[in-house]
Amino acid sequence: MARTTGSDGEKTEAAVREAAVGLIARLGYEAMSMRQLAAEVGVQAAALYRYFPTKEELLFTLMREHMEGLLESWGTARPITPDPVARLAAYVENHIAFHIERRHATHVSNMELRSLSHERLTQILKLRTAYEKELRAILRDGAEAGAFEIDDVGLTAMALIQMMTGVIVWFRPGERLSIAEVTTTYLSMTMRLVGAKIAYSDARQLRMR
Amino acid sequence: MARTTGSDGEKTEAAVREAAVGLIARLGYEAMSMRQLAAEVGVQAAALYRYFPTKEELLFTLMREHMEGLLESWGTARPITPDPVARLAAYVENHIAFHIERRHATHVSNMELRSLSHERLTQILKLRTAYEKELRAILRDGAEAGAFEIDDVGLTAMALIQMMTGVIVWFRPGERLSIAEVTTTYLSMTMRLVGAKIAYSDARQLRMR
Repeated sequence: MARTTGSDGEKTEAAVREAAVGLIARLGYEAMSMRQLAAEVGVQAAALYRYFPTKEELLFTLMREHMEGLLESWGTARPITPDPVARLAAYVENHIAFHIERRHATHVSNMELRSLSHERLTQILKLRTAYEKELRAILRDGAEAGAFEIDDVGLTAMALIQMMTGVIVWFRPGERLSIAEVTTTYLSMTMRLVGAKIAYSDARQLRMR
Repeated sequence: MARTTGSDGEKTEAAVREAAVGLIARLGYEAMSMRQLAAEVGVQAAALYRYFPTKEELLFTLMREHMEGLLESWGTARPITPDPVARLAAYVENHIAFHIERRHATHVSNMELRSLSHERLTQILKLRTAYEKELRAILRDGAEAGAFEIDDVGLTAMALIQMMTGVIVWFRPGERLSIAEVTTTYLSMTMRLVGAKIAYSDARQLRMR
């Protein structure tokens, strides 16, 4: 019996997260009430507090899991090759794929940092820094190896991340372009932006080896 | 007397706008109440409704004026030269300068489209399209003249706008880099991204002529 309860609990918790992401993306975190969230999930407000003792705890959990998921997906996608072009291509592909699948969660993660307590904000920013550091390392290695032409590693990393995450603002599946087509175009823009001395198609083949 | 009242009225209206931008950027539009805004400005809630009959009217005014201001500033900054490199450089410089000065208003304009009625959303999107069209024309002219190497004009315009507007997320005056330094780096990233056959320093001189 305990097992069944646990399993129902997990389902409820997942439903709470999903509904919360949708509501916060639509209304903003400050405007969403736990009562409204409970109604959306179809449970009593008291049930929510079992999973998330405070509204801020819920926001923090959503943001932490988003960033942990991103780091994890990059951990899996990260190629073994030391080649900076192949590594950058993998970073771009993974970044776009991850965020297109999580449009609302990305929106919440980017917009609601203002609502976290200082301590929790610090934790989220640490995860972000860890993720951005991976890109900076690729850019730095590429510049040092003479494969890239980069003026400022930090600014280039920010520019690339914002350009790539921006895809979620306008991309809708089933319209003019497929995810693969969008990714291909973003890959060639990225390679030109970093002054890569190699065409992307060659980079792709490099990765496949 | 009427004149004095009018002048006070203009001051109050400006104070309302400024306070509204700050509150919406901090709390989100849905969470902000007109009562709260009135308290922030130091007037009665009834006074607000003289300027903005509804809360949505206020949001719409903020967004419309932001976009009209952007179009107007580009109208002034737009160089007469047909040279696509010089025009692109001017677009980048103006875009970054305009948004760095209006960080909160930019945040509100990007985040709160969800809260506009369909008709008003359409009006704002028309202004956005007009502004983006200017960039697409520059990119298209550059590609046709063989000055740029561009795979997809629409995607390149979105990528550039999101990369440039992203500056407001991390840029703080008085830190490591000045606005001029940031702009110079973004200009060279832009020129590489569009595959410009000319270095930015030459483009700058071209504009100065």
